[in-house]
Amino acid sequence: MAPPSHCYISNGAPQNGVVVPMETGTLPPQDSHLLDPDEFRRQGHQVIDFIADYYARMGEYPVHPSVNPGFLRRELPADAPSRPERDAFDAALRDVRDLILPGLTHWQSPRHFAHFPASSSTVGALGEALTAGINIVPFTWAASPAATELEMVVVDWLGKALHLPERLMFCGGGGGTLLGTTCEAILCALVAARDRKLADIGSRRIGDLVVYCSDQTHFAFRKAAHIAGIHRDNCREIATCRDDVFALSPAELHAATQADVDAGLVPLFLCATVGTTQTTAVDPIRELSAVAAAHGAWVHVDAAYAGSALVCPEFRHVIDGVEAVDSFSMNAHKWLLANTDCCALWVRKPSLLVAALGTEQEYILKDAAAEGHDVVDYKDWSVTLTRRFRALKLWLVLRCYGVEGLRAHVRSHLRIAASFESMVRADARFEVTVATQFALVCFRLRSPEKLGGEKTANELNRRLLEEVNSTGSGPYMSSAMVGGIYMLRCAVGSTLTEERHVREAWKVVQDQAASLLRKMEINYSVVAE
Amino acid sequence: MAPPSHCYISNGAPQNGVVVPMETGTLPPQDSHLLDPDEFRRQGHQVIDFIADYYARMGEYPVHPSVNPGFLRRELPADAPSRPERDAFDAALRDVRDLILPGLTHWQSPRHFAHFPASSSTVGALGEALTAGINIVPFTWAASPAATELEMVVVDWLGKALHLPERLMFCGGGGGTLLGTTCEAILCALVAARDRKLADIGSRRIGDLVVYCSDQTHFAFRKAAHIAGIHRDNCREIATCRDDVFALSPAELHAATQADVDAGLVPLFLCATVGTTQTTAVDPIRELSAVAAAHGAWVHVDAAYAGSALVCPEFRHVIDGVEAVDSFSMNAHKWLLANTDCCALWVRKPSLLVAALGTEQEYILKDAAAEGHDVVDYKDWSVTLTRRFRALKLWLVLRCYGVEGLRAHVRSHLRIAASFESMVRADARFEVTVATQFALVCFRLRSPEKLGGEKTANELNRRLLEEVNSTGSGPYMSSAMVGGIYMLRCAVGSTLTEERHVREAWKVVQDQAASLLRKMEINYSVVAE
Repeated sequence: MAPPSHCYISNGAPQNGVVVPMETGTLPPQDSHLLDPDEFRRQGHQVIDFIADYYARMGEYPVHPSVNPGFLRRELPADAPSRPERDAFDAALRDVRDLILPGLTHWQSPRHFAHFPASSSTVGALGEALTAGINIVPFTWAASPAATELEMVVVDWLGKALHLPERLMFCGGGGGTLLGTTCEAILCALVAARDRKLADIGSRRIGDLVVYCSDQTHFAFRKAAHIAGIHRDNCREIATCRDDVFALSPAELHAATQADVDAGLVPLFLCATVGTTQTTAVDPIRELSAVAAAHGAWVHVDAAYAGSALVCPEFRHVIDGVEAVDSFSMNAHKWLLANTDCCALWVRKPSLLVAALGTEQEYILKDAAAEGHDVVDYKDWSVTLTRRFRALKLWLVLRCYGVEGLRAHVRSHLRIAASFESMVRADARFEVTVATQFALVCFRLRSPEKLGGEKTANELNRRLLEEVNSTGSGPYMSSAMVGGIYMLRCAVGSTLTEERHVREAWKVVQDQAASLLRKMEINYSVVAE
Repeated sequence: MAPPSHCYISNGAPQNGVVVPMETGTLPPQDSHLLDPDEFRRQGHQVIDFIADYYARMGEYPVHPSVNPGFLRRELPADAPSRPERDAFDAALRDVRDLILPGLTHWQSPRHFAHFPASSSTVGALGEALTAGINIVPFTWAASPAATELEMVVVDWLGKALHLPERLMFCGGGGGTLLGTTCEAILCALVAARDRKLADIGSRRIGDLVVYCSDQTHFAFRKAAHIAGIHRDNCREIATCRDDVFALSPAELHAATQADVDAGLVPLFLCATVGTTQTTAVDPIRELSAVAAAHGAWVHVDAAYAGSALVCPEFRHVIDGVEAVDSFSMNAHKWLLANTDCCALWVRKPSLLVAALGTEQEYILKDAAAEGHDVVDYKDWSVTLTRRFRALKLWLVLRCYGVEGLRAHVRSHLRIAASFESMVRADARFEVTVATQFALVCFRLRSPEKLGGEKTANELNRRLLEEVNSTGSGPYMSSAMVGGIYMLRCAVGSTLTEERHVREAWKVVQDQAASLLRKMEINYSVVAE
């Protein structure tokens, strides 16, 4: 790692022995220079080349840096510079290259299999750049009419591309919006549901409201419920089991809701998941919705990851019964090439969102939505008032790649994941712990029973993951602990990942496993007869 | 407006009579092409030139488009294209130019005076572009170490640059984070405060908690309180008055909290504002904090807009007593050149945020913060889990402009606003309704008392704003209604705004006023003796 070039003027004590006298600093730029088209052009082309070079060299970076906490804080001065150094932008870009990039986890690496992807594309990244350049804040229709209308159009485009029911879209009386994250989406839906229910039962009974999910539901839901004032004791995390492939059981939901009703509590909200984080389990929407409906509970579907797969009609069955739900969200930034952040939320009754989250007019500008026109003021659909113009990026992605392009993209990852899965299945030492439904493969070294059963197997696989992730030039994976089983997660999803990357990754896993088994003197031909 | 070039293949019925047979569509791009460095470079340079051209032509756009609801929705197809048209990216950029830009409100226009600015700079915009290109998700330290550490460094840099007390920064035992918006920041602080208080008084007493603000506090606070489950009846909006320059009165706060305590309720949270939205009023932090402290209530300072001015030491007095507060937030994207979005939140006790918003580990990766190292997992400091890497942009802005550069930037707007204010004062028909403290000038045509007093004056000024905003080539302003007085708001803050723009804007205001007064047969030399 090259030494940082932060030899600029600091307000405070010089760091790392670098002392530069105050007067050598460049004068601050004049205000007229701050958004000068020529300066923007010059520095902008530098940035584009910088990013292109980064993509070209992506394979060379270890996916995850080998650094210790504090490694970067120690390198940087304690204060911002008072005046910029000469050629500050060039120097800063050099520092990004030499100081920051080597300390990042490279989510775009073709060997990044640890998390669900932060899906990148040329058009997605440049859509963000364009949005940042235009820099508007479309919090009401009036605050930027075209931005609001483009958002209304593009959420319908996306909903149709994902085969969602029209009743969730503007064209069918519902409507959608683009937020930052699933946690925001769930929070918005939950507050709308809460207010509707409290209007029925009395606003002082917030402590009686109960929400439901499975033990596989992402923490985002419990976080949203907690923020919304749902009592911590009133969040039912219903246990799942391996026999049900870790899907939420309608019978268990029925039992839980009935028990709560019997105890004088009020079922409020079910968060069903299509594609859980740990194993991509799919909760059965139709049956769960029927249970929830009996209590007037709101049903939200969190398809943060797997929602993107719905662009392929062959996946329509995973949301069977979705016509009955109240709201649905997915992250186009996860697997649909839309770069961070872009979470789409659709609701059947937008008026409930507005009732819960709407604002009075603070300072008055002509407001089309308030006047009953057929447009919306999106500030009333979300936690935040200031909003980014995310629709432009998503519109560019849909337009430039087309629905078929997105389908081809998703299917290529499905093929690569299937290929990895078949490699795992072909090695008798390993097992696929949960059949692959999307592009996440969950696997582990089999439990060497004669050596102590599950506990030993878990420890063995924990060590295997450590070894795999520490190779530097190899893949970066993660783990899950589900039903008492520790498993490795290989999530295919980086745009740059090709078939060869999972072949190479599998080779690393096999080699590390062999070495580990040798060290531990485990011989599968003996123990796994 | 040129006709849209969306003659691509649609899944649904062709729009606008454009029918293109399916087979002429371009094949979807291959996956390997989606993040190809050369393709990125080619299209990236196009985007940079597009933005630079936009800046160069910014003055030519009407700030606010003259369009009717539905104008854009009607122009766009009802479905996303199945396959992209040929040269889809070029065609899309043309549509952005010819179809979208003419329908936007141009927040970067030098004649945009309606809202507090969405501050843009070359470095801020390109920082966003760079972040989008790198596209990582730093939700934990492990998920991208350098991103987390850069955020820790840069919030301290910013806090010191703004003359905040060290106890709010990492260097003084507190800490900061970068969120999207003030509403998120307040919600985080509020949930932390709520949980601390409920731990004391019992978690079933959420309905007894009371929060306090003034009638000038931004709706973001009431929205956050409502989301957090604070009963709508328990949000005290304390009335302000013109004599106090619309600042929250400590005596009134004392009376309100005491009345609540007497009624068996529990004061929870005070949101004080430095620079209110309507008139940039400054609540007296020291005195208010003393009142709040008597009840163990959390004090948050919302300096969304005016926080940027604190980069100038001459403004330090507006946060006198800030050492006593629990949290503080400001939007660097409003007036500090950091492009949307970038809200900084600092808290004295980060552990309270983590206790309220922290997650268990869902799927397990080595977690430095969990192991007690001196870094944080920022997912536990915010509503959202997925987060954008905002620190890179803010670091680039601070580094490339320097604290002195930011100071010069803010001061140039202060000078321009002062200049506009003196123009208003020099015209006897007008009055400055609230003395200008930052870069917002509130003014109106004086009340022609003999013609009906305030009500007539309000109507007169309402019509004046309409006339001013409808000139197209002129300025775009907004209004406020405070203490029964309708006033025009001229918020100086666009990076491109120069002295000449407010001179021209004032000329338009004078001309429209003259025309309006003529039409209404009001003669100030008669009525305003």
